[in-house]
This record gives sequence, C-alpha cells and structure tokens, in this order.
Amino acid sequence: MSLLDLPHHDGSPLHVSDESPRLGDVVTVRVRTSAADPVDAVWLRTTYDAEPVFHPMTATTDGDTTWWSGELPVHNPVTHYRFLLVREGGDAVEGQHEQEWLTASGIVGIDVPDATDHIISAYSAAPDWGRDGVVYQVFPDRFARSAAADERPTPEWAIAAGWDDEVIFEPFDPRTPLQLFGGDLDGITEHLDHVEEVGADIVYTTPVFPGESNHRYNATTFDRVDPLLGGDEAYERLSTAVHARGWRILGDLTTNHTGDTHEWFTAAAADPTAATRSYYYFEPDGTYATWMGHTTLPKVNHGDPDLRAAMVEGPDSVVGRWLRPPYDVDGWRIDVANMTGRLGALDVAHDVARAARHTAAELRDDPLVIGEHNHDATGDIDGDGWHGTMNYSGFSWPLWSWLRDPATPARAFGRPVQVPRRPGGAVVETFRAWHAAFGWRATSQSWNILGSHDSARIRTMVGRADVHRVAAGLQFTMPGVPMVFAGDEIGLEGVTGEDSRRTMPWHRREEWDTDTLAAYSHLARLRRSYGALRHGGLRWAHVDDDTIAFVRELDGQRLLVVARRAGGDAFTLTTADRATHLLGTEPGGADLEGPGGEVVVPATPGARLDVWRLDG
Amino acid sequence: MSLLDLPHHDGSPLHVSDESPRLGDVVTVRVRTSAADPVDAVWLRTTYDAEPVFHPMTATTDGDTTWWSGELPVHNPVTHYRFLLVREGGDAVEGQHEQEWLTASGIVGIDVPDATDHIISAYSAAPDWGRDGVVYQVFPDRFARSAAADERPTPEWAIAAGWDDEVIFEPFDPRTPLQLFGGDLDGITEHLDHVEEVGADIVYTTPVFPGESNHRYNATTFDRVDPLLGGDEAYERLSTAVHARGWRILGDLTTNHTGDTHEWFTAAAADPTAATRSYYYFEPDGTYATWMGHTTLPKVNHGDPDLRAAMVEGPDSVVGRWLRPPYDVDGWRIDVANMTGRLGALDVAHDVARAARHTAAELRDDPLVIGEHNHDATGDIDGDGWHGTMNYSGFSWPLWSWLRDPATPARAFGRPVQVPRRPGGAVVETFRAWHAAFGWRATSQSWNILGSHDSARIRTMVGRADVHRVAAGLQFTMPGVPMVFAGDEIGLEGVTGEDSRRTMPWHRREEWDTDTLAAYSHLARLRRSYGALRHGGLRWAHVDDDTIAFVRELDGQRLLVVARRAGGDAFTLTTADRATHLLGTEPGGADLEGPGGEVVVPATPGARLDVWRLDG
Repeated sequence: MSLLDLPHHDGSPLHVSDESPRLGDVVTVRVRTSAADPVDAVWLRTTYDAEPVFHPMTATTDGDTTWWSGELPVHNPVTHYRFLLVREGGDAVEGQHEQEWLTASGIVGIDVPDATDHIISAYSAAPDWGRDGVVYQVFPDRFARSAAADERPTPEWAIAAGWDDEVIFEPFDPRTPLQLFGGDLDGITEHLDHVEEVGADIVYTTPVFPGESNHRYNATTFDRVDPLLGGDEAYERLSTAVHARGWRILGDLTTNHTGDTHEWFTAAAADPTAATRSYYYFEPDGTYATWMGHTTLPKVNHGDPDLRAAMVEGPDSVVGRWLRPPYDVDGWRIDVANMTGRLGALDVAHDVARAARHTAAELRDDPLVIGEHNHDATGDIDGDGWHGTMNYSGFSWPLWSWLRDPATPARAFGRPVQVPRRPGGAVVETFRAWHAAFGWRATSQSWNILGSHDSARIRTMVGRADVHRVAAGLQFTMPGVPMVFAGDEIGLEGVTGEDSRRTMPWHRREEWDTDTLAAYSHLARLRRSYGALRHGGLRWAHVDDDTIAFVRELDGQRLLVVARRAGGDAFTLTTADRATHLLGTEPGGADLEGPGGEVVVPATPGARLDVWRLDG
Repeated sequence: MSLLDLPHHDGSPLHVSDESPRLGDVVTVRVRTSAADPVDAVWLRTTYDAEPVFHPMTATTDGDTTWWSGELPVHNPVTHYRFLLVREGGDAVEGQHEQEWLTASGIVGIDVPDATDHIISAYSAAPDWGRDGVVYQVFPDRFARSAAADERPTPEWAIAAGWDDEVIFEPFDPRTPLQLFGGDLDGITEHLDHVEEVGADIVYTTPVFPGESNHRYNATTFDRVDPLLGGDEAYERLSTAVHARGWRILGDLTTNHTGDTHEWFTAAAADPTAATRSYYYFEPDGTYATWMGHTTLPKVNHGDPDLRAAMVEGPDSVVGRWLRPPYDVDGWRIDVANMTGRLGALDVAHDVARAARHTAAELRDDPLVIGEHNHDATGDIDGDGWHGTMNYSGFSWPLWSWLRDPATPARAFGRPVQVPRRPGGAVVETFRAWHAAFGWRATSQSWNILGSHDSARIRTMVGRADVHRVAAGLQFTMPGVPMVFAGDEIGLEGVTGEDSRRTMPWHRREEWDTDTLAAYSHLARLRRSYGALRHGGLRWAHVDDDTIAFVRELDGQRLLVVARRAGGDAFTLTTADRATHLLGTEPGGADLEGPGGEVVVPATPGARLDVWRLDG
C-alpha cells in the first residue's frame, strides 16, 4: 500500500464544494478511500456551538477509489470537522469496530482533541490575486539606485556605503542599522522587467516611511515617503508602474510599536498632556512599554481608541490613507502582527486585525492583509483579520530542516541553536502538523518563504545551487503563495537577516546564478499555467529521507512533484498510465510511461525537483 | 531504558515552584532527565505576547537524575512554555545537534505548533476542597425516598413507579422522562452515612428545581426547590446536614436553555412585549432557537444583558441566589456549559463563565464552578471561568476504550458507534493528548468520571466486578477529582444514561457488591492520606496492552500505581529499593524488595490495581 492509497481529505475544491461559504450554508465534503485500504463506513463529525454532531456519509465507487460524501452545515464562523473511519471486526473481537480519525494532520488511531480538526471559514477569502500571485520582496535601500540617488546628501545619522561595499551585519555593531547604500523607489521602478523575469506580480517593499535607519522599521512619521527614497512622487511613480502591468503593490507597516523618534512618541514623551500620550503605555515615572525591552521601540496601546483610530481604523488611519492615491497600495504586510494588541493581560490582537481588514475592505474592492507571525499563527489567521501570514513555522522551518547544509555558516533565526537536519518523513510530518493548525485555506493564503530580510539566505542555508532550486521548487508547488526575497533568484547569500540585505549586483551580471534565475522563472510560469498548483489538493505520494513527492490535483488536472535533496533510487507510483514531464530544476527529465496504472519515477544522481502531469 | 528514564516535566509542585502564580510573577520550572537518556542542554521556551522567547536552564545532578532549572516569567494570564532538549552530534553530522521538544503530551522530534505546550495560569485556582475532595453525584428521583414521599400525590404529568420497578429508558418512549420514582431530598439527608462510607465529601445533586420530568433539567422556575423533593425546607435540611459534616454541596444549573414550561419562556411566548422575551432567540414568526432542535428546550440568549443578569450575573441571579441561604450551595455544576453563550456567530461563552465565577466569588470565600463539557473543553477551562469540567474526553473515553467488555450491551454515548477496545499504549497516548490540551491544573481540577446519569454504567461497560474496580482505582489515583455516580459503588448497571438512573436498592443489601463498595472506600481513604495522589506529578512507568503503571510523586512521597485489565507478567522498574503495598483491588498484594534500586512488580492471574509506596 502506498501513501496515495490512504484515506484523504483536504480543503481543496475536489473535497469541499465551497472553499468560502457563508454562515448558514451547507457544503458537501468528500473523503476518498482506496480499494487497497478499504473502510466500511465514514462519519462526518462536526461541532455545533462546541457540541459534537455526527453526520452519515454515502459512498460512490469509481474504479479503485471510493468517494464518501457528506453534508456539512457551516454553523459557526470557523466550523470544525473531521471524519470517523470505521472498519468491521478490525481488531478481531466480535462485535467490535476498528475506528480511526481522518484529521487535518492525517490519520490517528486515538481520540485526539480538536486542535487537528479540519476547519472551514465563513469569513471571506483572500482576493484571487493574493492567492494566485507571486510576491517579490524588496528591501529598498539595497535593491537599486536611480540616478537621482546620487544627488541626495547623506543624512546625519547615516553611514554612507558604496553599492559594492560589504554589509556590516553583526548584531551589536552600532553601524549595522546606519549603513546607507542609497537604493530608492525609482530604482525599483526601473527594474520591474527583472521582477517580471522572476515571474512575480506582487511587489512588496519593506517600509518606505522616513526613519533613522536603513530598514526604516523605526519610522519617524507615517505621513509621507522618505525623501531619501524619492518621496511621495517616487512612490506614486512606482505604484503607477506596478499597476500599469496589471500587478499589485503592498506596503509594510509596524502596528506593534513605533520608533522613539516618531512624531507621536516625541510629542508624548515631551508632554504628559499630549494628545498622543495615550498611544503608548507610559508609567507615571515616564518609563514605557517597549518591543522586547528595546527602549528605542515604544509599544503602542491598541486598547486606546485614539491610537486605534490613528493606526488602523477608518479611512484616515495610516492603514487607510496609504490604500488611497497617491500611494494606492493594494494591501499591507503588517510587521510583528503576532504581538500587536497583546501585552500581558491585554489581548485585542483580533480586534486590531479585524479593524485593519475592515478599513482595507472599505477603501478597496479586493485588498490583502498579511500579518507577520514568526511563530504559531494558529487562530490568528483565517478569521476576519489577517488573510494569512509569512509562513516561517509551517513552511520555512521544516524546509530548512530538510535541506540545510550541515556545515552551513547560516546562523540560527528565532532560536538559540541551529535548525537540525531531519529526514523527509519528519519534515512531512511537520508540514502536516502546521497545515492542520492553520487550516487549508489560511495555509493556501499564507506566504511560502525560503527566507526574508530577517533570516539567512536560502542559498547560504542549503549551501548548493541545486538544493537551492529544490527549495524554490517546493516554494512554488506546495500550497501557499511564493514570496521571493529579492536576490534569492540570482543566488545571493547571507548568514543572518542583516547580512542577507546585500545589494543587487546589477552591474556584475557575471556573478548571477542564471540557472537559478531561470528555474524561478519556469516555476512561476508553471504555477500560473496550472490551477492545480494554486488551488489543487495535496496528497503525499512518496516520502523517504531524501525524497518528498506529492500530487496536486484540481478537477481533472493532476501534477506530480518529486523533490530530492540528494540522489536516490527509482520508485513506482500506482497513480496514472503516463506522466508528461513539465519541469526539472536540473537538466534531464523525461516523460514516464509505466505498465497499466503505474509510473516509475527514475533514479537520480543528485538533488533535483521535477514536475510531471499525470494522464490517464 | 524505561519510561521512567524519559525527560519529564508536569505542572506539579516538584516541577513548578508555584502552581497558581499571579500575573508578573516569575516561577521556577524544572525538568528531570536521567543518566540513561542524557541531554547536553535544555532551553525553556515560552511565548511573550505570542512571540517565542528562549531562556537557558541550569543543571544539577542528583545520582542518576539531572534536574534542569529555569525561570519562567508569567507574562500572560495563560502563559505557554515547553522545553528544547539538545544533544550534541545526535545525528552523526558534524556541527549538528539533535533536538527534541518536551511538550505536555511528551517528547516530539519535530517542530509542532503550540497546542501541546505546557501552560500555567495566572487566574486563581479551584478551592482546595474542590481539588482534594471526592464528589458523589445523586439523581434525586432515584436515590432515596423519605417517609414524607409517600404522602405526596403524583402530579398530573408523571407516571408513578414503585421503587423496585424497572426503569423505562428507551429514547423514543414518551414515558422515559415521566416515570417518577419519588426519591426526595430528605432521602439523601438520611443516607449521608452511606456517602461517608463511599468516602465522598462533596454532594452534587442533579437539578432540584420544579420541572415536569424526572430529571428536572427542564425547570419551570429557578425560584424554588420542587415540592416533590420536599421543597426549600428539605433542601435547607440537606445543605445544613452536609455542611455539618464539614462537607460541601453543589447545585446543577442549565445555563444554555430552559424548558418551554419555564415561567420566563411561557411569559415570553405569550407576549412579544414580555420582559423575558429578550431572554430567548425569537424570530418574528414566533419560532425560536433551541437546544439541538428540541422545541421543548428553548435556548437562552446570553448576548442579552437582562438574561445574563437573571441567570448568572450578580447576587440576585439564579447562580447568586442559590449560593446564599437557605440553599447555601458551595458552587455549581453547570449543565451544557460547552454550548452556553454560543450560537452561530455569537460566542460569549467565556463571558458567561467569567460572570458565573465572579458572582460566586463575590458571595462565597471558596466557591467551585465546574462546567459540563462532553467534548473538547480546551480553552474553556483554567481561565477565569469554569475551574474544570466533567472530564469525559480526557478521562472517561480513554478509560472505557481500555477496559470495555467487547461484548458489552452498553450503548454508545456521544457517537454513532461504540467505543473501540484499545491497547494500553494507545490509551496512555490519549490521556497524554488530553492532559496537554487542558493543561495540568485544569486536568487536576476536573472530574474523573467513570460515567454519569448521561452514560452507561461503568459496571455494564466493563462487564466484570474486578475490571470495574480497576476503573475505580484509576479514577482515584490519576490526576483529577473522582466523581462517583451514586450506585456505581455497589455495582449498579445500565446500558444508557436513562437506564443508569436505577434506584438504589437500600432494602436489598444482598444485591450490593460489597467488595466494590469496600474498594471505593479504601481508594478514597488512600487518596485522602496521600497528597501525592491529589497534588503529585505523574510519570508513566510501564505500559503494555493490558498494563498501565505510573508514579505519582510529591515532595519525598512516591506512589506506584499498577493497573491491569487482565493477567500479565512480572516487570522490573528501576525506581526504588523497596515498595510497601498500600492497596489492592483484589486479595493479595505484598511489599516488594528488589536488588539495589529496582522493584519487580509481580505477575498477576487477572485484572487488578495495586498501589505501593516507593521507599529508598
């Protein structure tokens, strides 16, 4: 029996009649089982105001596959469900049944809590563009300089750097945040053809507010674009150019704190009667709450209605104003969304997320709001707040743990020791655990990232170009929206987030890893061509230490993805008569034709990822 | 390596310096590891406003045991934590570490979501009596008749039954709820010596409000005690007698719905302008929300401030009034707590629970509020609402699945098929999953039930007296508060909840299973004598299909519990030099003395449970 014979359900259209139902709807849910692993009955269990309810399912057989169908009332905004699989006489005791649950993390033989239930959300989904697109993340200071950049004087706080200088990145080096390379917004606008070559169509820049640092996460005001980046006019040119291509643009806003040079804070700190004093958590002695103890990053108080209005609520809030011209962003990536609105006993995080989404929905037809959550976003996404998250926990961490070079100089991110190197089975188990926790739709709406401006570069993490391309292959073929950190596509390196913020070597094309760039381009095109890669279900097909293979399927379309972190043997999948080779991250790769109903995936000498279309 | 050598942490005093800290406190948490399974470093990971933070732990070695100690800031009202265990070179790759997490459900080798984190709550704990006591559940109509009962005429709705009549219990038989046996409150008062013999000290009666049924969950008013039970005066006599013994008494209130004969509802249904109309969810056409579609059980609207005030909020609410004389209850068991305050998009369940607890705390020094939750109470307990739940999911279900007679006539409760019979390993895994979901303290404050008036009787479920006593043994020795459904202790039977509501055969003592009664009595005494059974940690010691053994420990006190559902072989535990036999549910059982540091648990021919004190 292979993995493909296991009973299966996920939140994709093949298994759920409506991914985005309204409250009160009834959706049809389907489970597939195989003649190789038959069951005698399947019950749909849901909870109704926290009370468990069972609904019967009816079977229809199609060759070796049996489809079990049941009606699921969407009674609560986030409705839980799972399936009880019953086999007669399973443990050889008369009158007894073998019972297993088909949960969102797979099959379990014991009665586990609801945490791994499938969920379906009656809140509206992310806009199509936000799920179908490919995001390109740009760190403005390091991406590209327009000619105008040469005219701008270096501000007093900054340390001017030449484009080819090395990045200063040690965490306790005071120069790290001050080293200014002078990339600007017109630089981005001038290089949109490159973004197109990568295959992306959503431009997401890290903050563009004025701030006394190269990262600008410590804004001094939210009212305008940093003149060092070209100011409001340059942003308007970029936004217009992006939209002219039919693309989208996203802003980046920290809702959890401001810099201590922010105009709200300087006013509040100078005068206890200032209108913005209530925006922060001041103690009578003048001390205040901060982000993780950094006094330069005062935490804002979302329990305060005035702060809430200024930051996220309504058309005149920061969130609102930038969604309108001249900036005209299509949505937001919200920084430190996990901590926003949370401090000790206070937890209004969902109210903040809801307000941001509501504000966006009032101003634009189809906005996207993504919350950064570098940890466990379970319960914070797929409600009526953030549409999804930057999926470190559910995508990056497990991917790194499969592909990392044991000898990488990449430094740990978010924990005191490095990611361990784990075998394929453990990695797939991890993917499943997080898919279950977030739910199918929120996973699909979240960003598959190989890294970001906050982590080591994927190339450095995995140490090799071929393994890097395997990582990119998974980024584009697993459920979720690929977010490419600018420079990854040409093989830039970096051992920490700060080090990863290297400049794009536009004038040193000979250093570009053009094979990898081509792989990104092909992967993006493939993802755009095949709905199964964007909306299809996911069934694990074959897993061993060095191989992870799965099938994505939508309507009649079935794609087989085989990722190998190292060379490996051939294996047989009983799933189709023929397989047409669509993409390989390394040279080679051919159509497959097996004896009836089988395809033999060939042995490979090294790391590679291939995609086949299954036919027949 | 045995189970006892595995790294361990739980929420007990041996591992947490304060089980009930205040917000802002720092508690010391400890992990034990063994020389048989050493680790090189342990990190304490907590979340701080949803951001992960790591704290180092320091090691102290004591013989073969290493204790790792770390400081945990209680930053949020429910603070999450877990432990990262690091071993150098674990997977034989240079520079690599093997990493595992010690979660509340045990050790996992992958990076799982936070759902299985340990948790510590800064909300106040249940009162000592609510955790140290033993609950005796009485269904008043079936427990005992006082002489006065003979004087009371049968009401019009009821079908009079003789005490020895068989219970009518088929679900669709209209006579089932109407068959009135005439037990009353003075009957309970007269039999408190029996309750004492069982070893209980908390009397919990199902509802005593007037209601046109034998179960009285469909009250017609909350203002007085049913005259059929002896009225308010009889309740006062019972309450006074209970308190005179230094015991406690709990009421039972359905906060989710009323009967359609309730005075609130009849007024509301008769007149759309009635003051109580807003208490319910009336549609313009006069239809209304119900409990699970039963029109006789209209659901109340906790979104309505007036209903909230009438039911749970403040001294004059139902919850409040009964906490005062003449009723003077010490707390409440809240019926259908899981659904209370939840309907579709509305979810004010935590507000209701918080209000009930707050009301109780205003009126009494040390009240207890237990919410019935027949499903997954994760997140609904150990906050500032319900102190605990009737633990079906985390105790009864797994226990039944280990001990059930394959041929039992007991009918399924809560699902469409019977509980399967599972081996010890699966059952312990289930216990661990639920301990993790609820958290240590909420598990310890919840009720270990072998069944209730809503389920088949344990005796019928397991089919044998000796296995029944094993079940009782686990009920009294695992974390949690034993709740004995009156009649279980003498071996009453029942295939469904309704059938289990059989009368107590006071005048047919020859039918009593006095061996089982004695076992309950001994178990309750043992639990009272040994703090380790009430507050001690839990380490699994040995598990096979037919055996579940564990150690409870507190300060220097260590008790070994060995439960066997069938005969089995001897096994050795490396844990002590000597073991003193304290209790066996069957004849036999002796002190154990092994070679240095080991005890050999002897083979047994059949089901039994033994408790030893470990010395040396």
